[in-house]
Amino acid sequence: MAPDAPTHLSEEEIISLVASLAGGAGGDLTVGIGDDCAVLGGAQAGLVVTTDLLVQGVHFDLGLMSPSDVGHRSMAANLSDLAAMGANPAYGFLSLGLPARPQASFVSELVGSMVSQGRAYGLKLAGGDTVKSPQVLINLCLLGAMGALAPVLRSGGRLGDAVCVTGRLGGSGAGLAWLQAGRDPDDPAAAPAVAAHCRPVPRVEAGRALAESGVVHAMMDLSDGMASDLPRLARASGLGAAVEAERVPVDPSATAVAEALGGDALGWALGGGEDFELMFTCDPGSVELLADLVAEAAGGLAVTQVGRLTPGPGVSLIRRGKEEPITYTGYDHFREPTP
Amino acid sequence: MAPDAPTHLSEEEIISLVASLAGGAGGDLTVGIGDDCAVLGGAQAGLVVTTDLLVQGVHFDLGLMSPSDVGHRSMAANLSDLAAMGANPAYGFLSLGLPARPQASFVSELVGSMVSQGRAYGLKLAGGDTVKSPQVLINLCLLGAMGALAPVLRSGGRLGDAVCVTGRLGGSGAGLAWLQAGRDPDDPAAAPAVAAHCRPVPRVEAGRALAESGVVHAMMDLSDGMASDLPRLARASGLGAAVEAERVPVDPSATAVAEALGGDALGWALGGGEDFELMFTCDPGSVELLADLVAEAAGGLAVTQVGRLTPGPGVSLIRRGKEEPITYTGYDHFREPTP
Repeated sequence: MAPDAPTHLSEEEIISLVASLAGGAGGDLTVGIGDDCAVLGGAQAGLVVTTDLLVQGVHFDLGLMSPSDVGHRSMAANLSDLAAMGANPAYGFLSLGLPARPQASFVSELVGSMVSQGRAYGLKLAGGDTVKSPQVLINLCLLGAMGALAPVLRSGGRLGDAVCVTGRLGGSGAGLAWLQAGRDPDDPAAAPAVAAHCRPVPRVEAGRALAESGVVHAMMDLSDGMASDLPRLARASGLGAAVEAERVPVDPSATAVAEALGGDALGWALGGGEDFELMFTCDPGSVELLADLVAEAAGGLAVTQVGRLTPGPGVSLIRRGKEEPITYTGYDHFREPTP
Repeated sequence: MAPDAPTHLSEEEIISLVASLAGGAGGDLTVGIGDDCAVLGGAQAGLVVTTDLLVQGVHFDLGLMSPSDVGHRSMAANLSDLAAMGANPAYGFLSLGLPARPQASFVSELVGSMVSQGRAYGLKLAGGDTVKSPQVLINLCLLGAMGALAPVLRSGGRLGDAVCVTGRLGGSGAGLAWLQAGRDPDDPAAAPAVAAHCRPVPRVEAGRALAESGVVHAMMDLSDGMASDLPRLARASGLGAAVEAERVPVDPSATAVAEALGGDALGWALGGGEDFELMFTCDPGSVELLADLVAEAAGGLAVTQVGRLTPGPGVSLIRRGKEEPITYTGYDHFREPTP
């Protein structure tokens, strides 16, 4: 430890530090730390890899979600990272931390749900580790196969590109707020938001269709919310972005939850995170074609243009005709909670 | 949760349950849950994958080890799993859980040590995740490349095979006991044991040479101790085993620590675990050749025959001419501590 004035790091600073220690891409590594997945090269070309660690009490609350929901959600979040490259899910590796003397039913529900969610997208759970831990820990490491396709990176955005998203946003944040408020999860108005939080659908088919189109310039999944994730995509592309608030496809169930709880549906849509929809950029003239491809590949899933890539710097929100910075900052794991 | 009489699981039972939920090998998976690494097939043939989760307070104590030691040891433990297949380390993926506001120096030392230990064996840290956690969490997922070689599995042992180990055993357990006793880590008699615990050397070159020889029937690394790991290898091979206590290559430093603390050096050698030496089986006539190959590949590293594969069932220890069950049971993460 440094004897004085220790530097405390934010999540982005930790990622930067780890990336600088690891060294960048090159050699047999096409894309290293900083995209949704690493892209391997050389003899392993065509493989992409993602990993996520989920900690009970930080990322999920077993008082609010069933073990089956937690398993589903963990797998879906990782599949979403593969989807964001346009990859086909292939293999999964699960590290599981469990309190002493775990119950068979708990492990069955948690892992069974993970396995079946993975299998629905062609993924095979192929290995793992189990250890004792004070709280439940779930680390998934997933390998995806690109086949002959090139992975779609965050860095390919071009000036003037349309910024598009799949599906509806804000459901997950609204569903979590609903559960945290202790409201009935089966309430018909809120149930879609609760489902968006507990059983999110990874956009694997849509991601594959978008990559296959050959006209998507940049793509990532919305895991932390557009207010955090769009600045990442824009920065990786050396650009800025502008989002029109009125075009953001807010989940109707999030609006219903916002009305019932007095929350902010647009806030959840931009900053709530964990919707696991895809965000991508393309020539404005390609939006219609891509909307058709996604609808066909993914059972009518919507595509909505929400903004444009700009010279930047920074990402702004255009709201009632006025431009303001996107102030919904999403979720930084290491930020102090605001009082 | 089951409403009554919940079944509480041991580590082996959890692994069996997860393996049964995941389904076995087949299709594009050559070896699934249960060996040191998963062995991929199909388009990913030649890749092996291992993952390990380490939890502060369960697997390491930052009061006893520096962040640099913890990083080194985490990477070495995973490299050892690749070595046990005969693979060349290729890519690593790190998930890191850190308490709020981690210090830059801590992250630098921990991850820097991991990266340099990996790099020494050709491994590139290619991706990861960082999250907030109440304690330090380290999950590494490593990919190894077999090239043209077939991976050496636990299941290939044959009746009458010699059971051999590389190096000396018991150093890590003795080193940990020394540190836990609050003794001087720089004491010359104990320092090699402390180093064995804090900076273990993964036997990557030896594993590769053993796989290349083509005459090794079964192999695994000694992560939990021979008393736990040999029954696993024997069971996977459908056999039993007998170990001669007098032939176990006990680390001289473990003997010195045992004398100073009143411990049991053979106990550490058989049950202490975390020596990360390789254990393999071969025709008795091949031992000398393999000892030469390992010595040449790995700077004079010793190979010692400690026993034989028997019809079984079970693994016995032959001590002062008498056969007894191997009662050193190694480390089960979910076993209740003995009072």
